[in-house]
Amino acid sequence: MTGFPVPTMPVPPVSVVGLGQLGGSLAAALAAAGRPVSGWDVDPAARAAAEDHGVQVSQELTGVVVLAVPLPAMATALDGLRVDPGATVTDLGSVKVPVLTALGAALGDRFVGGHPMCGTERSGHTAVDPDLFTGARWALCLEPGTDLHRWLRVAEIALTVGAEVVPVTAAEHDDAVAAISAVPHLLAAALAAAAGQAGPLALSLAAGSFRDGTRVVGSDPAFVTALVEGNAGPTTAALDRVRAQLARPWAELVADGHAVRTASTGRRPVRVPLERAALLALGRSGGAVSRRLAAFVEGWVPEL
Amino acid sequence: MTGFPVPTMPVPPVSVVGLGQLGGSLAAALAAAGRPVSGWDVDPAARAAAEDHGVQVSQELTGVVVLAVPLPAMATALDGLRVDPGATVTDLGSVKVPVLTALGAALGDRFVGGHPMCGTERSGHTAVDPDLFTGARWALCLEPGTDLHRWLRVAEIALTVGAEVVPVTAAEHDDAVAAISAVPHLLAAALAAAAGQAGPLALSLAAGSFRDGTRVVGSDPAFVTALVEGNAGPTTAALDRVRAQLARPWAELVADGHAVRTASTGRRPVRVPLERAALLALGRSGGAVSRRLAAFVEGWVPEL
Repeated sequence: MTGFPVPTMPVPPVSVVGLGQLGGSLAAALAAAGRPVSGWDVDPAARAAAEDHGVQVSQELTGVVVLAVPLPAMATALDGLRVDPGATVTDLGSVKVPVLTALGAALGDRFVGGHPMCGTERSGHTAVDPDLFTGARWALCLEPGTDLHRWLRVAEIALTVGAEVVPVTAAEHDDAVAAISAVPHLLAAALAAAAGQAGPLALSLAAGSFRDGTRVVGSDPAFVTALVEGNAGPTTAALDRVRAQLARPWAELVADGHAVRTASTGRRPVRVPLERAALLALGRSGGAVSRRLAAFVEGWVPEL
Repeated sequence: MTGFPVPTMPVPPVSVVGLGQLGGSLAAALAAAGRPVSGWDVDPAARAAAEDHGVQVSQELTGVVVLAVPLPAMATALDGLRVDPGATVTDLGSVKVPVLTALGAALGDRFVGGHPMCGTERSGHTAVDPDLFTGARWALCLEPGTDLHRWLRVAEIALTVGAEVVPVTAAEHDDAVAAISAVPHLLAAALAAAAGQAGPLALSLAAGSFRDGTRVVGSDPAFVTALVEGNAGPTTAALDRVRAQLARPWAELVADGHAVRTASTGRRPVRVPLERAALLALGRSGGAVSRRLAAFVEGWVPEL
């Protein structure tokens, strides 16, 4: 490993609450990696599917507890379950400031917010895929009060399932995902709805550009609505930036969009001290922590 | 065949001018189907690639002449080539009113505008794929002055390479593709440019929804700019419809977009007389002419 002094520590057990696409995939990936992992879901079918992937079904939560439930259920996800008072709690929710507000007060420095940037327009336990996290970015929140040791425990889990860890604050995360996730969902919805207004001829001529541009609005509308309404402020700001772009001369707009879309990226290993400000600077620069390169920044020709 | 009385006629030879992705793929598909096909391109490498696909290289154009050149080159594409004065001329350009204006005056009823709804973000003769047209919609213009016999000759070529023919007027076509092609390209450009403004953290977290939403702006900027600027009026109107959608409450917008994106389609064979008004009504209703069903309308459970 280059430049990232990961302390030696015993790997903790993992308990996953919510065994749909994300939680079920995480539990299955950890079980496949030989890690002790238990899981719980209110749906017996999701529990049975997890057992088939080698996950122990249990309401006793210990080690690192992963909340993999929809955003509206996050605040009450632990109700009725037995949680080890020393457990570290993390989540997989797509917005981070509201989740931090909901859980941070009760859990204090035991809570580390997270968001793996994966998942598809499918959902539920039938969409479980142990390879879902391979190569994905996993944003992991470092607030002023975050316990760095607990942060590393969660980071180690993300690295174990093949993801790369991006250190962020909750607010930085929500601004970033507004631009690259919430707004794409709203544009897809507007594109589809406007094409519906244009009529059957337009829809019958729709080809690749329309299919790609609208794919994400095939997701469950409740999920998409929670994603945008749960991150309303940053999404409004990001949508305003898109509106301003659309007012520019088209040739300029197309040239700039093409340049961003096709910018070459590479990786450069960097040395980062295990310290909050340095880790956040890594994230802001487009960098991440990965199992292979330890820590790297994009936009450079790879040295490895 | 159900309901579409295609007259028996000898199949004409085909001459393709421009052997990039679209023209080269069409020539290769026709050659693979055993049809006599010749081609020409100003680029010797494109001519050589076409010869490798069984296309005869020639500057003598006869039968059905297909103009597969970029929009800015359309009006002069036949300059210096020897064109049989009886030949039917069609094109593959992505806008139809401007091409009709440029070529209709000189060619009169010998010109039939067309637009196959396929192609990828790649371009040039290295992107040739004889299967490119399989299952694609191919808009084919029926203006008041269009010779129906010549229209059928071009339709037969589209059907031969596996496409489905959508009868349209040039103006209807341009309105429809503004909504499902030009606007998706502009939204992709705006999404990418705004994410670039948001910074390296946002781009490093970008996952599926951003990649899908921006893929088409990976195309050659000159092609995209010609696509939108060459269809400026309809594109402005379609973009205004998207802007109005984006001003709606998000939950409503997401629900409507989801409904359009996931509407189930099926096919119902219909009987259509070989007559302009009836063919255009078929196109307006979302229907097409295909080799298998002859003529069908979507939105119905298939009967075949």
